[in-house]
Amino acid sequence: MSDPLLLDLASNVYLEGDRLVLVDRRRLPGEIVPVFCENAEDVARAIENMVVQGAGDIAITAGYGLYLAALRAAGSGQRSAGDLREAARRLKATRPTGYHLAALLDRLLDRIDQEKEQDPPAVILRFLERALERQREVSRDTGRFGETLLDRDDTILTHCFAGSGLLYMLRFAGEKGKRVRLYCTETRPYLQGARLTAWSARCLGVETTLITDNMAAFFMSRGEIRKVFTAADRIAMDGAVANKVGTLQLAILADYFGLPFYVLGYGGPDSRTERGEDIPIEERDPAEVLSFQGIPITGPRVRARYPAFDITPPELVTAVVTASGIRYRKK
Amino acid sequence: MSDPLLLDLASNVYLEGDRLVLVDRRRLPGEIVPVFCENAEDVARAIENMVVQGAGDIAITAGYGLYLAALRAAGSGQRSAGDLREAARRLKATRPTGYHLAALLDRLLDRIDQEKEQDPPAVILRFLERALERQREVSRDTGRFGETLLDRDDTILTHCFAGSGLLYMLRFAGEKGKRVRLYCTETRPYLQGARLTAWSARCLGVETTLITDNMAAFFMSRGEIRKVFTAADRIAMDGAVANKVGTLQLAILADYFGLPFYVLGYGGPDSRTERGEDIPIEERDPAEVLSFQGIPITGPRVRARYPAFDITPPELVTAVVTASGIRYRKK
Repeated sequence: MSDPLLLDLASNVYLEGDRLVLVDRRRLPGEIVPVFCENAEDVARAIENMVVQGAGDIAITAGYGLYLAALRAAGSGQRSAGDLREAARRLKATRPTGYHLAALLDRLLDRIDQEKEQDPPAVILRFLERALERQREVSRDTGRFGETLLDRDDTILTHCFAGSGLLYMLRFAGEKGKRVRLYCTETRPYLQGARLTAWSARCLGVETTLITDNMAAFFMSRGEIRKVFTAADRIAMDGAVANKVGTLQLAILADYFGLPFYVLGYGGPDSRTERGEDIPIEERDPAEVLSFQGIPITGPRVRARYPAFDITPPELVTAVVTASGIRYRKK
Repeated sequence: MSDPLLLDLASNVYLEGDRLVLVDRRRLPGEIVPVFCENAEDVARAIENMVVQGAGDIAITAGYGLYLAALRAAGSGQRSAGDLREAARRLKATRPTGYHLAALLDRLLDRIDQEKEQDPPAVILRFLERALERQREVSRDTGRFGETLLDRDDTILTHCFAGSGLLYMLRFAGEKGKRVRLYCTETRPYLQGARLTAWSARCLGVETTLITDNMAAFFMSRGEIRKVFTAADRIAMDGAVANKVGTLQLAILADYFGLPFYVLGYGGPDSRTERGEDIPIEERDPAEVLSFQGIPITGPRVRARYPAFDITPPELVTAVVTASGIRYRKK
């Protein structure tokens, strides 16, 4: 039993001298492979290519991208404001669905403006250290509230990688002597469930069962799953939840089988997004669906689609678990 | 445009001298690899290992296994009745969920008993030739009735490989000038949707889009899918449908989004199976879920489960399409 690598972002996204190191999540858990980023463009590409994932983690990683841009601008002796805005624009464009990315970069640009007298790289670093500390607290508190929803003997299903809040929830349940078994959907095409969630949960000593994405209803129909927990990349003010594609169908299945469907909402809804329909759904390169870790899986001339997220309407969400409490949305 | 290899079983399961050749479906569509079976045990293992799949195709393949057993027994000059019953028992045990396998072998043993004067291998061959011809007719007729359910401009979703009835349905729709687009779930872990269905449909010139198993609800929620068609490995007399795992969740999603859910039922329900609960669900080796074409996808000590089928209750099935017509089950 050890701390899962993904429990704390600082263990897999960190500065080494004046470059950023990202542990490549596409290669986990088989290999720990560092990806080195020298500048904001490297960071933007790494985010686009899923070297790092998860809305909160992407936001802080992009913050480091802005730090590298500020560092390079300072090194060249130029005024950096325009460069920084350009770098922020590039970083924001990488993944449109999560709200944390744009929100964090906007706050960061504001802070640099407010602290004009200060050295921008130092301002950014102080900001990111506080953001990291805040993310740890939010994850722990979300996990603490989530744990109260678990029974002494329970089996839950999760999808994709729901972040460190899920891991804290499982750890706190264990500390209270609850026996919680975890089912993970493998989450095609990137297999975050198989590669990140199942592995992390096993590091915590949780009894973990991997299933393919088409087996959820089977296990629900057999009474083998009691609750569903997912994360959210963005929650609109109407309660609609954008999360990894496949979340919507799990919510519909939970509803059909009368199971609670809980969303780990961390910091809560995005006050800038009124309705679910306002959330942009990123469509990624369909090549990612036509192959499996580089091996083609179908014949020629077959098209594919790859919406990376879907929107779950509020009436399918039993409750949103945030760092400040549990908000029930339906009875 | 060409006849898909899987449109007619005789093109991929056939005798060559006194051995049986199976085109290995696990390697399609990338490679056409023959698997040679010398005896009933070889055939049983090939069925267990998914060299061939689909309840009807498995049944006829097992019939050839019995033929090989009869041939070997005749060659050794022994009375073959006991050997044949033992071979049939072994073949029946390979895949318990579909009803065609046991039904065909039982009919075959009865026929051999009835035609005691005749040479068993010759009796079996005549029987299998008729069964193949009957399977072709049933598939064509099922496809013909299925086609009447399609609109002039339509988009349907299918799961796994629903057999040649689906291919005939698509061909007949094309011949009538209907524009039918096909979405295929990839159908993990064996990817029959990606490897067999998408490829076969493209051979027919159908516009085909591959999606992962977790994307069905997304495309339904966007109005991009209008109807769902799956096959059935067994239909009980109460109307419950056993089919590839993932079928149940598609039926629940279709119901939620108000879309018709059609089952290609070919020969119809199994008169020997009263209720859905009576259908045994095969659980396969979980190693198949822990890896992808031999590559491990998760960390150590993660368990997996692999139920190969699930049961869809009759109230979720709009209609069953058989060779003798369309039976509506709900309004």
